[in-house]
Amino acid sequence: MSATDFHGVFPYLVSPLDEAGEVKADVLARLCEDLIKAGVHGLTPLGSTGEFAYLNRAQRRRVVEVVIEAAAGRVPVVAGVASTTTADAVDQAREWERLGADGILAILEAYFPIADDGVFAYFKAIGGAVSVPVVLYTNPSFQRSDLSLPVIERLSREPNIRYIKDASVNTGRLLSIINRVEGRMQVFAASSHVPACVMLLGGVGWMAGPACVAPRQSVELYELCMRGQWAAAMQKQRPLWALNQAFARYNLAACIKGGLELQGYGVGAPLAPQVPLSAEGIEDVRRALSAIGAL
Amino acid sequence: MSATDFHGVFPYLVSPLDEAGEVKADVLARLCEDLIKAGVHGLTPLGSTGEFAYLNRAQRRRVVEVVIEAAAGRVPVVAGVASTTTADAVDQAREWERLGADGILAILEAYFPIADDGVFAYFKAIGGAVSVPVVLYTNPSFQRSDLSLPVIERLSREPNIRYIKDASVNTGRLLSIINRVEGRMQVFAASSHVPACVMLLGGVGWMAGPACVAPRQSVELYELCMRGQWAAAMQKQRPLWALNQAFARYNLAACIKGGLELQGYGVGAPLAPQVPLSAEGIEDVRRALSAIGAL
Amino acid sequence: MSATDFHGVFPYLVSPLDEAGEVKADVLARLCEDLIKAGVHGLTPLGSTGEFAYLNRAQRRRVVEVVIEAAAGRVPVVAGVASTTTADAVDQAREWERLGADGILAILEAYFPIADDGVFAYFKAIGGAVSVPVVLYTNPSFQRSDLSLPVIERLSREPNIRYIKDASVNTGRLLSIINRVEGRMQVFAASSHVPACVMLLGGVGWMAGPACVAPRQSVELYELCMRGQWAAAMQKQRPLWALNQAFARYNLAACIKGGLELQGYGVGAPLAPQVPLSAEGIEDVRRALSAIGAL
Amino acid sequence: MSATDFHGVFPYLVSPLDEAGEVKADVLARLCEDLIKAGVHGLTPLGSTGEFAYLNRAQRRRVVEVVIEAAAGRVPVVAGVASTTTADAVDQAREWERLGADGILAILEAYFPIADDGVFAYFKAIGGAVSVPVVLYTNPSFQRSDLSLPVIERLSREPNIRYIKDASVNTGRLLSIINRVEGRMQVFAASSHVPACVMLLGGVGWMAGPACVAPRQSVELYELCMRGQWAAAMQKQRPLWALNQAFARYNLAACIKGGLELQGYGVGAPLAPQVPLSAEGIEDVRRALSAIGAL
Repeated sequence: MSATDFHGVFPYLVSPLDEAGEVKADVLARLCEDLIKAGVHGLTPLGSTGEFAYLNRAQRRRVVEVVIEAAAGRVPVVAGVASTTTADAVDQAREWERLGADGILAILEAYFPIADDGVFAYFKAIGGAVSVPVVLYTNPSFQRSDLSLPVIERLSREPNIRYIKDASVNTGRLLSIINRVEGRMQVFAASSHVPACVMLLGGVGWMAGPACVAPRQSVELYELCMRGQWAAAMQKQRPLWALNQAFARYNLAACIKGGLELQGYGVGAPLAPQVPLSAEGIEDVRRALSAIGAL
Repeated sequence: MSATDFHGVFPYLVSPLDEAGEVKADVLARLCEDLIKAGVHGLTPLGSTGEFAYLNRAQRRRVVEVVIEAAAGRVPVVAGVASTTTADAVDQAREWERLGADGILAILEAYFPIADDGVFAYFKAIGGAVSVPVVLYTNPSFQRSDLSLPVIERLSREPNIRYIKDASVNTGRLLSIINRVEGRMQVFAASSHVPACVMLLGGVGWMAGPACVAPRQSVELYELCMRGQWAAAMQKQRPLWALNQAFARYNLAACIKGGLELQGYGVGAPLAPQVPLSAEGIEDVRRALSAIGAL
Repeated sequence: MSATDFHGVFPYLVSPLDEAGEVKADVLARLCEDLIKAGVHGLTPLGSTGEFAYLNRAQRRRVVEVVIEAAAGRVPVVAGVASTTTADAVDQAREWERLGADGILAILEAYFPIADDGVFAYFKAIGGAVSVPVVLYTNPSFQRSDLSLPVIERLSREPNIRYIKDASVNTGRLLSIINRVEGRMQVFAASSHVPACVMLLGGVGWMAGPACVAPRQSVELYELCMRGQWAAAMQKQRPLWALNQAFARYNLAACIKGGLELQGYGVGAPLAPQVPLSAEGIEDVRRALSAIGAL
Repeated sequence: MSATDFHGVFPYLVSPLDEAGEVKADVLARLCEDLIKAGVHGLTPLGSTGEFAYLNRAQRRRVVEVVIEAAAGRVPVVAGVASTTTADAVDQAREWERLGADGILAILEAYFPIADDGVFAYFKAIGGAVSVPVVLYTNPSFQRSDLSLPVIERLSREPNIRYIKDASVNTGRLLSIINRVEGRMQVFAASSHVPACVMLLGGVGWMAGPACVAPRQSVELYELCMRGQWAAAMQKQRPLWALNQAFARYNLAACIKGGLELQGYGVGAPLAPQVPLSAEGIEDVRRALSAIGAL
């Protein structure tokens, strides 16, 4: 795989911080190391699960640095860029590229609603600011903007905007995107979609928090899909989905951090006023992880 | 197939009415005849596409009569029951069964919000009122109530509540349902889901308006899925999805009626104040139908 | 007051039914009598509180008949018309006028979304079908359609569409309407607005369920507003608002029926699957009624 | 007025920046000077209109400094604090107090949903971090969190959480709040409410963008309300509302900045990817300003 041909399982990494707000580099590096050994195809710091919305610029930078260093070129690192302003997003993207990121996961945060032309201009500016591939990321549950099909089509014609991760719950929309971009853009699933379905539709993989705690199982599922062994894939998919359901029920970062704590990674709790996973949530996650042999 | 073992392609039938509000029995009967000849596995009058929400009781009764007579026992007829009150829904269900319906498609209309216990009681009452199988139908885009997973699970334990058609856009939810009901209930897709995905997840077919205008293609897709020929299924699925997209863009009834008019069925326009398909919509539908050889 | 010049307090009447679904004419007539004696300025059967969405045509007709007979011309009766189709709405409106209604409260129910032109055509058709004044009623919380400012302006130019009752929570919108229709249409408040505010803005009264259980207090408030005694009005308004809050917290029909039962009217429970007011709700309503001397 | 007893008209200030992202201190200071001369009772930098969501920490700090210096103690400055994390919000609040702010306008930004306990903890922490009064600010249209009545009541018992500005459109909710907090907290209106209504309900003033371009008219309206001259207040209120309507139709910051440009303040455009006010919007704003003599 060329570093600019993304596919497969990209765990959405958590951002472990200590009480003083410092990134716990050793914990994060060990997690990256273990994920790579489990066979994941890439790493994605600063997605939703990575609490990008809760970190300041220095914390974000440190997370990116640690992950790039830990990956050491073995798998591509696609780092999240998120802002309400074009200028700040472009600045982040350029810095992540300078730090060695292999790709940019581009997110538009909005306060006031943004019309399609503004959405297009924002992402186009990010694409134009870097030479690495850009993955569009839209999550209408948590972000106050969304990407319409016409904007996606326009962006698919920009040279290095080459992927989209759609975290709506609307799986049919992924086929609409695939039909519309005619190969100019590839689609990644999110934790809100059943990965096997998205692979059947023509997706190239998934970027999702649950892959952080079930990397081996995710990679096995991916390989079954790639070999067209759909019945076997579904057998693996069914219990894995219980994990996604647990994650959908709770705060995403709290869940993945809670699951990783169960697995022995001292990643801590999400940043306040977010709260740690409840006792009930911990049991749910423990059950889901046990059922797939991930504990 | 036993008449009480539903699976496969069930077109959501339109309700053709003349200016005076009389059901055009000949047009509806001819449509049923042609759909059966094209191989569909059942017929569903009085779904969303059938404008149940726009018809009075006498019109609904007449639609059910005509479809049952036209089917003549060759395929099961699953007739829609929809009301805001339990008493009226039970009354409709009993009458449709007396008329010869092989199943009931049960819909809860709501004005004020209804708590889970009320939702459960409504559907349980319908199940208890008839001896034919009941298909739960939830469409959160248009109906003011929805079925939660706990209510679905409780209903799956009722003797003749045996199917659910979920018309949300959330395809992952279908796997959540399948995992949760453990075989006590079977899942049908709606036009908002990609049928091939739902079949992969373990669905038993789909009930949808587009199958009215593309019955042969739908049946072929269903058979490929049943044989596990997923790559071939997806090749058929891709252009068929453009049809669903066109239908999602416009008023559903206007679209299917518009498409059927293009195919030579004099089904007329949807009831006012709904408006007929626009000129642009007609072109969209014509294009989608042409692309799959349905014109 | 001419019967066609509506203003003041119009209680939204409940629809008392017995187990067999028959309208309890004696209970409804006694309620109307008492409300008129308490000084209300009109009566409104078949609003939201009147469970129009849960009654069939025969039940609706009977409610209208009983109220018109009980009013005996002493106050105007503005009867609710609600449908998904223009033809049915026009038919209801004509029948209510034949029965002696002094005005029509016009409601658009929708299943599929309706564009502005369709909304306009629906209400215009009702206006054209009767010679009594029409009150537009929009309640975006419960109805699947809403009235935009441009549609309201267009409708204000229709000869007998002369009032609007807006049951959104957006009180500022009422001033926008008042500014826009320039006197061609008058505005009534709903239970979601603070009546004193709407009167200050230029409203002519309110149509609301709570007035059913607090008619005397409502009339006193209205009179203070009319005399421009705003400080005194607010002193009366403050405790009355607690009643509206209680009603907003629970199913509207259950609440007003529960309150009337506390006052000795055997109006029964709302139609299933709606449920009667909970024990906690009864206490809330009892407290609110006691605080204003309505028990 | 003591600097810690807020009431009256507090314009939500815009944040003028040059191309390089530097705060245009001279323009902002002149605006503050003119507003104070027009009689406003306080100044609010870093509200929604102030584009707090688009500014980095250094830009926010500079805006606060310039406004405090321009106010020179003549009117209180209530500076906006907004974050997704408690730690960052507390840090901002402390810094604004050190810079000389007379009060804090506290905003909770959220990415993942936050339960009531988390919302309470966030605002309580801000209150505990400073000795100046805190104004809660909730704007459910643009912020991904809201304040429930129970949380508002709990916060009203915190020593220096003394005001709330609710920017929902639900004016009745303000009376619910007033009834509930029993004088422990005072209510300010936002541009989504009719100020005269909120004053009638017992509010103490308003914090809003439109007051930036119509300070004199706003102060006159406030004084009429304070004197209980409600009929005269409404005569002034009616044309002023057209201004709020224009602002609701467009991007808030673009509108106020556009209006100020018409008045000769070189405040520039909102930050990209927001777009400047359209030609049509400029005409709307020009018309609304002309109608009230503010051009």
